[in-house]
Formats: sequence, C-alpha cells, structure tokens
Amino acid sequence: MDELPWSRQRLRRNNEWLLLERLRSAGAASRAQLARDSGLSKPTVSSALASLEQAGLVRSAGTLAPERGRVAILYEPDPTAGYVLGIDIGRARLRTAVADLSGALIARVDLPNRGRSAGSVADAVIDAAAQALAAAGITSTQVVHAAVGTPGVFDPRTGRVQYAVNLPGWGRPGLFARIRELLGIALSVHNDANLAALGEYAFGAGAGSPLFVYLLIGTGLGMGVVADGQLFEGAHGAAGEIGFLPLMEGLLAGGSAPRRGVLEDAVSADAVVRAARQCGMTGPLTAKRVFDAARTGSEPAIAAVQQEGRRLALVVASISGVLDPDLVVLGGGVGHSADLLLDIVRSTLHRLTPLRPAVTPSALGEDAVLLGAIATALRTARPLVFERRTTRTAGRP
Amino acid sequence: MDELPWSRQRLRRNNEWLLLERLRSAGAASRAQLARDSGLSKPTVSSALASLEQAGLVRSAGTLAPERGRVAILYEPDPTAGYVLGIDIGRARLRTAVADLSGALIARVDLPNRGRSAGSVADAVIDAAAQALAAAGITSTQVVHAAVGTPGVFDPRTGRVQYAVNLPGWGRPGLFARIRELLGIALSVHNDANLAALGEYAFGAGAGSPLFVYLLIGTGLGMGVVADGQLFEGAHGAAGEIGFLPLMEGLLAGGSAPRRGVLEDAVSADAVVRAARQCGMTGPLTAKRVFDAARTGSEPAIAAVQQEGRRLALVVASISGVLDPDLVVLGGGVGHSADLLLDIVRSTLHRLTPLRPAVTPSALGEDAVLLGAIATALRTARPLVFERRTTRTAGRP
Repeated sequence: MDELPWSRQRLRRNNEWLLLERLRSAGAASRAQLARDSGLSKPTVSSALASLEQAGLVRSAGTLAPERGRVAILYEPDPTAGYVLGIDIGRARLRTAVADLSGALIARVDLPNRGRSAGSVADAVIDAAAQALAAAGITSTQVVHAAVGTPGVFDPRTGRVQYAVNLPGWGRPGLFARIRELLGIALSVHNDANLAALGEYAFGAGAGSPLFVYLLIGTGLGMGVVADGQLFEGAHGAAGEIGFLPLMEGLLAGGSAPRRGVLEDAVSADAVVRAARQCGMTGPLTAKRVFDAARTGSEPAIAAVQQEGRRLALVVASISGVLDPDLVVLGGGVGHSADLLLDIVRSTLHRLTPLRPAVTPSALGEDAVLLGAIATALRTARPLVFERRTTRTAGRP
Repeated sequence: MDELPWSRQRLRRNNEWLLLERLRSAGAASRAQLARDSGLSKPTVSSALASLEQAGLVRSAGTLAPERGRVAILYEPDPTAGYVLGIDIGRARLRTAVADLSGALIARVDLPNRGRSAGSVADAVIDAAAQALAAAGITSTQVVHAAVGTPGVFDPRTGRVQYAVNLPGWGRPGLFARIRELLGIALSVHNDANLAALGEYAFGAGAGSPLFVYLLIGTGLGMGVVADGQLFEGAHGAAGEIGFLPLMEGLLAGGSAPRRGVLEDAVSADAVVRAARQCGMTGPLTAKRVFDAARTGSEPAIAAVQQEGRRLALVVASISGVLDPDLVVLGGGVGHSADLLLDIVRSTLHRLTPLRPAVTPSALGEDAVLLGAIATALRTARPLVFERRTTRTAGRP
C-alpha cells in the first residue's frame, strides 16, 4: 500500500484491503461474517465489498442458507484478477508454471535444460514460459509478476548473478534484462534455495515454523532461511551460501593454513558418488543410483549413504550453532532420499551438539523451487493488483 | 502500547507517544518544530505537550529566540521520569550501572566476582546493585526495569540458564527469581553476547548496520546478531551459541566419526595460552600476557597470536556462509587485542571465502555487555513509564 495522507479514502482502501486479505486467508464469507470478524460496521463492509466487486477483485461464491434468517451471499477473492509466473532454472531441468491470484496452478511446462551457454539457457527459459502462458490460455499482459529461481546470488544493482558455479557463463550481464524484455513481464530473480524455503513455508514442511532452514542438496549445496514467514537474506543476499563454509580441519593443527571452503564438494551429489566409489562401487554412478543400491542392501552403497548422513549432520550442527532454527528441511536431489539419511543425521547430531532442531524431508520434493517462485510472485502481485484496480476506480469522495 | 479500542483517547495517547519519541531521538524542540515534523496541528501538539508535562514525561529545556517572531519554549523528555539498572555477570567481574531514561549513566559499581558458588555470585550481584542504587541516590522503587547479562541461554519458561559452562552451578533453578525478589525490581535475563551486540548497536561500532555480528571472545566464545536493530535470537534463544560449532575435521576422512563441538576451546582465551606454550612461551601465562608479549616482538607470542587470528577467520567465514552479515565486531578479552589480530583475520578470510564482512574491533570494550543491558532495559522501561504515567492521568474525555 502506498502512503497516502491520512484521509477517509485511505481508511476506506485500508478496510478494503483487510477484507480482501481476510477472504484470501480464511475463505469465502458473508457480509455478516466479515463484519463480525473485522469489527467494521455492516454498512462499511457492504460498501467495501461493492467497491471490491466493481474493481474485479471480489466475486460472489454462492449463497449461505442458515437455519434461521435470510439467505446470505458468500464472497471470495476473484482469482482471475491477475496471474503470476514461476520459473525454476535448474542445471538439469527448466520448470515453469502459471498460477492465478489464489495460487492455483493453471499450467505447467517442464523442459530439460539442454543449454550449452548462458544465452541458450535464457532462450530456453523464454520458450518454456511462452509455452506455459499458451497452455494457461493467457497473454503476458495478464501476468502481473514473474519470479525466477536460480543458483547463486542475484545482485539487483548490477543485474548479475554471483556464485552460480554450476551454470557456466550465468554471471553474464544483461541476461535477466533480456529475459524480462522478451517476455514482457516484470520479473524478480531469487536464489533457488531461498525460493524453495518460501515454497516449503507456504505449501509444505515449513508451514507455521517460526524459524526454519531449507537445505537444497543436489548438484550444489544451498540453504534458505525463513524467519516469521520472511526470508532472511543477509546483508548482501548471500545468507545461506553455506557451500562456502570452510572446513575446520587444520584449525587445531598449529601453523597450517586453513583450507578454502569446500563444504559443497563434501556433501553434494558428486560427494555421494565419490564416497560410493571409495567404498567399492563400480560402473556408471549417480547419487540416485547409490541411494537405490542402498535401498536394495548394497553394503558399499549403504556405507556411502552413512557417510553422507554424518556430513549432513555436521552441516546441520554448524547452522544450528549460528541460527538456532526449530526445523531443518532436507530438499534437493539428495534430500529426496531423506528416508535413508534421517536416522544417521539425527543420531550423529545427537553426538555433535546440544542444539538439535527437528530434521524432516521436503514435502514438495522437486517442485519446491517452482512453488516458492509462485508464492513469491504472489506476494508481489497481490498488493499490486489491488493497487492498480482500486486506483482505476478511485476518485470517489 | 496496549491495544485500546479505536477511540479519540487512543489517538491522543498515540500522538503523545510519537512526540515523546521524536523529542528523544532528535533532541529538544519547540511546539512549532514538533508540529512541522509530525504533521499534527499546533493545538494538538500544545495539548499533547501539556499532558506530557503534567505526567512528568516532558519538561522545559530553555527557550529558543529566533531572529524574527516570538520566543519559543523548548521541550525535552524528562530523564528523571524513571531509571534503569544494567548488570553484567562476568566470570571475573560483576559490573552494574544505573541510568536515567535518557540513557545517561548516573552511577557505576564494578566488583571482582569472587563467588565460589552460584548462590554467592547471586549475593554479590545483589550487593553490587544495591551499591549502584545508593551511589545514584535512588531507591529500587524508582527503577523501572533491570536487564542482566549472563553467559548461557536463559529459558524464561523454567527460569534457568542453560549452557553456561564457565559458571559452575549457574543453571540452578530459582537463582534469578531470588535476585529479582531481593532487589525488588522487575528484571529480565539475557545472553551476555546478545547484550553486547545491542550495546554496540546502540552506542558503539554496530550503529546503523543492517545486520551485524558481535563476537565475544574471552573465557568463552559467544555471539550476538542484530538485524535491523533487533536481536536475532533463534527459535529457542540459542542463536549464536557458536561455541558448539563442530569441528569439520574428519568430514573428508571416510568413516571416522565427527568430533563434538570444541570451537570454544579452540579460540577462547585459554586457546591463546595453549598456543603460546606450544610455541615455546613459559611461565605463568594469560591471554593478555601473550598479547602484551606479541606487542613487544616476542616470536612465540606472535606465532600464537597469528594462529588465533587464523582460527577467528574460520569462525567469521563460517558465520558469513550462514548469515551474510555486513559487519563483524570483535569483542571480549581477546577481541580487545583486535589491533594485533585484524590483519591476519582479514587476510585469512580473503583466502577462505568470497563472503567477507567488514571486521572491526569493539568500540565499547569491556563495557559492551553492561551498556547493552542499559540499552535493553531502556527499551522495556520507556514504553512502561509512558504507560504508567499516562494511565494515571487518564480519564479525560
């Protein structure tokens, strides 16, 4: 909401926004219910609903016939008042989705990420987004906001992504400006683990947690922190870049220089494969194959998985000593095998530290980043749609 | 502020509070200046100032004679409207101070902490506080709130301190209830590093930082995080208990179990002494003596200090990968020798991680915890004094 001077109109718009948010969070309601919940008078509620309906923000959602008294009209937010686009740029796959203002997914398009250069990845993103809009049957002008998830840290000042070591050339300037221009949609860029954390908070395992951490363990190692429903991003947007945590070995050894951060190398998917080879597994390996083999009882695979679990416990313990979260959610490709990892993570954590958050698997799986992008785009789009539609119909006394 | 129903009286008190806070933060002002700054009408400002003056919250601070126009009275918050008490329970010293509502220190009493048991430490705290009140010439009934800093994490549910490993018996139940009762002052208990962080934010090196970390490096290792002026305390008040950070050695070594957190042992004052002995220093040593010897060019002392600096860099790098602060302030007994440590901390950090916050010495030195206690007590006391004094004079139409 912008800061109008104190006035009747501002009060009126404030009431309209509060009623709209009430309908959004608690579901369809009648005038009388809204008056009771909000403490506003019935005439005020009626007038606000009329304005909201005229602005296309609220619509009738049927009627309520009580045992006694008159039949009442139920109101709900009009989900077609605007749309959002979510994009997850993963190294292996591009995922896009269109949702209406209620958050319901209208269309989804996933494509393998075959881009060999940053430019061709950007082209593929634009292609996937266009396909998603077509599948949803809407045009780009109906999309109020798009949120994009990418590895690394986006610097809005330079428009460039930093630290995205797994996407070569991805730090190139102008990349996102070009995507924005060709799509014709206002667009914000976010760290993938941060979006996944917001996705798990909005729709998944983190719901209601006062302070939770989402670990994205896959090709890389990322982390998102959500405190009281808000992303904790640090002073430069790099909070949770724990791939850079230094290893502490050598800390106790007298004069030796500490080694540069390699925590990512030590716990990401490749680390699982390396550990499996060291334990004696052969042939073409992926982290998924190692986990699958562990499920069928392969001893070297089980040993590799146990080692991964111990290392993840160290990561969780390090995070806990700094942040003290109440919950850590394991996500990403490796996190998806949390069923094999949880016991060893928890028991190792028990030996490591008295600060032990709950550790659970991701509820959203591979969709966490995409759904986080949708949730994030909605946070921007909802007040914007309200602003635009009420300003258009403003000018009343 | 309590949540009165919407009413003229609520608006009036809200205006009074805003004007009082304006006088507090921007200094003495006239009616006309206040009207200009606040957007309130002059009659509203006059009426509010009259109420505030009658309630003993505001007083005249002289007059302003402009080149043209009438002489105007300047108003300021009455600092004698209430007092606060700050207490720092350190292993070596007990520090207490009394401040008025403006934050000005009225009296200070420091005593060595000779307590052999938790009970005798509590007695000494009460003794020191009583001396400070006497020196300030006030009684306990004039003290609105006391804030106490202690190592460890205070659990308000049980009234007990956890993790205060350096104060034997300090986790005993009823300890703070007894201090509160014998002092006859409402009292809150806080982690010492958290208070020091708030002290540096309110009065020292952290002023204006959007996200800064205070490291208390002395007998133990503590950390306080201040984000947008508010303490970041974690889900259970244990954020920043980095003494528990596990060492990562063994992380890369195949099957070995990781070691339980000993980061505190590796960087606290005792670690400096141990390192100095390993480097060849002899005789009775303290961290301070090692730093003093390094200043006079002693090679083993310099080697020990360099090692401490490298270890602190690892701590800062670990924190940065999780939190991404813009500033890390080095405080506590070891932090006070930051002049010797900063170069090696910064250069090691450069090799360890691309996420490099500014690193500076504490501005408040050994007073950081005490001044943080004062700042914290003021945050509680100011609205409380306003509440009490305006409620007493309320009942107007």
